[in-house]
Amino acid sequence: MNDRLNIAVVGAGYWGPNLARNFRNNPAWNLAAICDLDLARARGVAESVGGAPVTGDLGDVLRDPLIDAVAIATPARTHHPIVMAALNAGKHVIVEKPLADSHESGTQMVRRAAEQGLVLMADHTYCYTPAVLKIRELIAEGFLGDILFVDSVRINLGLIQPDVDVFWDLAPHDLAIMDFVLPGGLDVTSVSAHGADPLRTGKSCIGYLAMPLAGGAVAHVHVNWLSPTKIRQMVIGGTKRTLVWDDLNPQQRVSVYDRGVDIAEVSKSTTADARAANISYRLGDTWAPALPEGEALANVATEFAAAIRDGRPARTSGEAGLRVLSVLEAATGSLVGAGAPQLMGAAAL
Amino acid sequence: MNDRLNIAVVGAGYWGPNLARNFRNNPAWNLAAICDLDLARARGVAESVGGAPVTGDLGDVLRDPLIDAVAIATPARTHHPIVMAALNAGKHVIVEKPLADSHESGTQMVRRAAEQGLVLMADHTYCYTPAVLKIRELIAEGFLGDILFVDSVRINLGLIQPDVDVFWDLAPHDLAIMDFVLPGGLDVTSVSAHGADPLRTGKSCIGYLAMPLAGGAVAHVHVNWLSPTKIRQMVIGGTKRTLVWDDLNPQQRVSVYDRGVDIAEVSKSTTADARAANISYRLGDTWAPALPEGEALANVATEFAAAIRDGRPARTSGEAGLRVLSVLEAATGSLVGAGAPQLMGAAAL
Amino acid sequence: MNDRLNIAVVGAGYWGPNLARNFRNNPAWNLAAICDLDLARARGVAESVGGAPVTGDLGDVLRDPLIDAVAIATPARTHHPIVMAALNAGKHVIVEKPLADSHESGTQMVRRAAEQGLVLMADHTYCYTPAVLKIRELIAEGFLGDILFVDSVRINLGLIQPDVDVFWDLAPHDLAIMDFVLPGGLDVTSVSAHGADPLRTGKSCIGYLAMPLAGGAVAHVHVNWLSPTKIRQMVIGGTKRTLVWDDLNPQQRVSVYDRGVDIAEVSKSTTADARAANISYRLGDTWAPALPEGEALANVATEFAAAIRDGRPARTSGEAGLRVLSVLEAATGSLVGAGAPQLMGAAAL
Amino acid sequence: MNDRLNIAVVGAGYWGPNLARNFRNNPAWNLAAICDLDLARARGVAESVGGAPVTGDLGDVLRDPLIDAVAIATPARTHHPIVMAALNAGKHVIVEKPLADSHESGTQMVRRAAEQGLVLMADHTYCYTPAVLKIRELIAEGFLGDILFVDSVRINLGLIQPDVDVFWDLAPHDLAIMDFVLPGGLDVTSVSAHGADPLRTGKSCIGYLAMPLAGGAVAHVHVNWLSPTKIRQMVIGGTKRTLVWDDLNPQQRVSVYDRGVDIAEVSKSTTADARAANISYRLGDTWAPALPEGEALANVATEFAAAIRDGRPARTSGEAGLRVLSVLEAATGSLVGAGAPQLMGAAAL
Repeated sequence: MNDRLNIAVVGAGYWGPNLARNFRNNPAWNLAAICDLDLARARGVAESVGGAPVTGDLGDVLRDPLIDAVAIATPARTHHPIVMAALNAGKHVIVEKPLADSHESGTQMVRRAAEQGLVLMADHTYCYTPAVLKIRELIAEGFLGDILFVDSVRINLGLIQPDVDVFWDLAPHDLAIMDFVLPGGLDVTSVSAHGADPLRTGKSCIGYLAMPLAGGAVAHVHVNWLSPTKIRQMVIGGTKRTLVWDDLNPQQRVSVYDRGVDIAEVSKSTTADARAANISYRLGDTWAPALPEGEALANVATEFAAAIRDGRPARTSGEAGLRVLSVLEAATGSLVGAGAPQLMGAAAL
Repeated sequence: MNDRLNIAVVGAGYWGPNLARNFRNNPAWNLAAICDLDLARARGVAESVGGAPVTGDLGDVLRDPLIDAVAIATPARTHHPIVMAALNAGKHVIVEKPLADSHESGTQMVRRAAEQGLVLMADHTYCYTPAVLKIRELIAEGFLGDILFVDSVRINLGLIQPDVDVFWDLAPHDLAIMDFVLPGGLDVTSVSAHGADPLRTGKSCIGYLAMPLAGGAVAHVHVNWLSPTKIRQMVIGGTKRTLVWDDLNPQQRVSVYDRGVDIAEVSKSTTADARAANISYRLGDTWAPALPEGEALANVATEFAAAIRDGRPARTSGEAGLRVLSVLEAATGSLVGAGAPQLMGAAAL
Repeated sequence: MNDRLNIAVVGAGYWGPNLARNFRNNPAWNLAAICDLDLARARGVAESVGGAPVTGDLGDVLRDPLIDAVAIATPARTHHPIVMAALNAGKHVIVEKPLADSHESGTQMVRRAAEQGLVLMADHTYCYTPAVLKIRELIAEGFLGDILFVDSVRINLGLIQPDVDVFWDLAPHDLAIMDFVLPGGLDVTSVSAHGADPLRTGKSCIGYLAMPLAGGAVAHVHVNWLSPTKIRQMVIGGTKRTLVWDDLNPQQRVSVYDRGVDIAEVSKSTTADARAANISYRLGDTWAPALPEGEALANVATEFAAAIRDGRPARTSGEAGLRVLSVLEAATGSLVGAGAPQLMGAAAL
Repeated sequence: MNDRLNIAVVGAGYWGPNLARNFRNNPAWNLAAICDLDLARARGVAESVGGAPVTGDLGDVLRDPLIDAVAIATPARTHHPIVMAALNAGKHVIVEKPLADSHESGTQMVRRAAEQGLVLMADHTYCYTPAVLKIRELIAEGFLGDILFVDSVRINLGLIQPDVDVFWDLAPHDLAIMDFVLPGGLDVTSVSAHGADPLRTGKSCIGYLAMPLAGGAVAHVHVNWLSPTKIRQMVIGGTKRTLVWDDLNPQQRVSVYDRGVDIAEVSKSTTADARAANISYRLGDTWAPALPEGEALANVATEFAAAIRDGRPARTSGEAGLRVLSVLEAATGSLVGAGAPQLMGAAAL
């Protein structure tokens, strides 16, 4: 196992066991340690994956010169100190979504990783599902044409979180996926957030994000902890075709519709009637690509190792995590302003 | 047929034939005329319903003392002059959605009807479907508890209209239904509208409406002409139960879920952990009420006659139509403001 | 209208109005009469289609030298005398499914039509839906490869018929469709029927038909009047691809799966392990062809006229109707024998 | 752990790891050994569950006086010798479906277990899913009324097995479930089997079983390895209500429909019209009971321990396994007879 990279998993709560299992089973990795303040919990995870060293002291991990990388699955508010310590100790880092609990903290992490020449990867797990990998590929190939709109719905009867609202809990998935599949990444010009807390829990349980994109398209996200039914669906409309990803339909997760509206030519000088005359409707076939089997986290582990070995950013880099944080912070700002749009990027200057 | 009311259908385009057929078949009505500037089109409709007098001159209808009422299915921009003329001529009026093309026009119509002592009914057809009638009944009985949120999606590959955007074309349905089923009607405190015109047709083809409701709940509408798949779904969350209306699932249009989040008590002084301790989750049964058969427009025709005979407002009155117009106009204002929330009603003062 | 063919619709019950409407609207036809013993019912149908001559006397129709054809929508037990009289009077005939209430009667009808040089068409309406036309085309092109199996389910909470069992009521649809789409028509080697009458209505309300096909494939039909849910689904498996027709899914009625089992070579001398080694699995894409809009009965009317004008058998000819009757009679025989297989065709000799 | 029962898992192939994991995690059991001729495979399973003793010699297990029971997950043709040896050694036995590869072998096993006073349990896992437990409970309470029909479909693109046909591979599930939920168990009066092997693999890949039940109801099973889509659905019709179990719809697995046909009274002397007059249709509500979470195999392990401790047959006893074998053997006989019905039980005498 000498040519394997050594990794320690930090945090043995909800997500840690999945990380441990996948790094354990991945040929590029050796699971070198599981670290949790609650040592019994660390031992439980270690046992469930067939055994691994455990420790309750993060310092043990960071001081160990054999350990190349750490995978951090602790609460978001602890990401910044742990990631900074790990980077300072010369470890490559993969960190649970969201990258940090503020854009400022995330920026420091990204900067430090660059200074240290280390890989900082955002564990945007969904991006490595066969469905999302295929979507990215189809868009990159131009199969959908130019993107016109992205509409994502992620609703469920969800656990109300003690410390984050539904935007920070669920929307990172949608935002990370959009960042991953859109040709220019998640490049929004403004963010309007509308939240509701009808049960008066102290934070939004229902949320809507409206985000005009640079280039004229629009992205929208609906997240909801109070829905009795579970929907995980994203529609990506393009000038050539429109794609629907229904993650809860294992028999046909990704469908591509050759249906849409074509406009032969629209000039400002033409009248509405003339423009209408140029509109035609496509009602073509539907096509659902076969998707390979494969667990997303296995792909995550493989990508993390490849980025380290190749000395390149991971496909879901710290910068990708930052773009997600930008939108989440803007959403929080918009909520404070009762839905007022928050200008982003160049538009905000 | 002497005890039947006499009605003329004005407008023989898309919706007129449906009105003609339903008034023709309804025992409360006698279909006395079909009026359209295009006389051939009027004749076509008349023939398709088994014959009826036709005219190309609205004056013929309005001057006919035997005609009690007119049903208007002309483009929205013509509603105001036709409705006003009909009311001035002493005719009861039912008018296609939207009631008018501006709140000001609608207000004049409502006021004139009141002055004349005539019924002015908004043809909010969906409200008279068996599903919506049942939803209204369940909410009125308190079966859902207090309403927490309403989320409506109405998307399709739709015809891009020459004169209206997707908000004015599709959202009147959702807004009229919300107005009909919510105990206090559609009482929104602000309207934020986010539209997109990625094909540069000159008007929004994709639209989102976020509307906080008086009392703390939230309503949201997603309308879209560019979706390759058709979805017509409304979720209405309550403190006791949550209802999902899926209009495209004829085998189970209305489902009521005894699933949700209960909060025993939340006081501002308690800590987040204490509040979390008071949260519990219900995962109870699902129930789908049997719905009677029946065409909505038949119920519309019956209600119009009953309102006239009883001298009472129709269940979907001109005022209901006005509330819908208020939101649509605010949406247009919000669009102009790039999504800035428009305060409504008392909040706007 | 001199170049139109003149047709009389006989029978103004459940199906007659649909025939009348479609012949009325078809440019190849002139609806010359509606005939029903119940003259009021005939008048009702005539009025609903915008007017047509009516008569209560079949003789009026048959003696009228201007009438070219009759469309018969009377109960199955009356088909034989009416069709024979019409053929004897020199009229082309289209007749509701099933062609007759016995194979013997049907055979006489087919023979007489041949003798008279007249078209006798079975109104197998489903065959003219866009979905079934597309299925036939795909199979004919070899897109599915050789057919391996056909499984059809047609269940519903159905009206228990006074005079026929569920086989004779529903299975004619499935059998006619199979006859239409299979390259060699419905060529079964035996029929096993299993029925159940658990409510003791005196006839089967639940039925299963197992039918080995010449060539080694198998066809199966499940019909049921007691199912609370409605399913209309046919799966057609081929060596290359498998097709699923879900008639109640308007968004994706026909799906073609490039999924299946391939066997490189199987010889009797190889061991089971060797055979297993030759098995491979395809898990390819799914494709759903766009289907044109269009009412099946309009296509029926067009095909009837074309067959008459071209002096050729209709695509759903009397012979097709006879093949359906053969299976239905064999099913009845199998039921009497408690499910014993009834040999058919060459196999029966 | 002294009060736990000790169990050895025999067979570390497809199903063994699931058994090992569940016995390992069940408070009633101590996982004492994993036995497989392929010792490396045994070790792999042991490691995956956090460690357990392994052996390649069944004798080690049977001679160990501390071992109370064995769970057998080896190929069906090996069940008889292993089960007999285990029973002879005084071990309680749970054995994978099907109980044996012949009714005769199974009968010997059941007889020996009785002689030895040991529990012989059939691992009919599906019977212990929350859905099937609920179905059994609803039927036992009379909620569906008398059972009229059971229709089960279990189709998929399945692995073609080297040694068994699709009946012996898949139908044991359906038959075991029917035996479990029907008030009188699986009491069939005859079995007709229709199989097809269109790919000439040497055994049926498509199968249909028609089984009249004592009392007048009918059961039917459709199993298929060549279906591109996966369906696992069972409809159970009763005089009062009808239940649909759709195992692939996690949001609504079990639906109970208050829909059906009522017949007030049917006497042989009444005419068909009179009988028809007594027919009425119920179109009532649909109800989907909430189902508890829970893995079926955990319930299996618990039931096995309880049966041993209470000295009673398991709910899925060896006799239940025998009834399933009876039908499978009759099916094989019917296949040989080209679908000829095989009389069963009293009817066969």
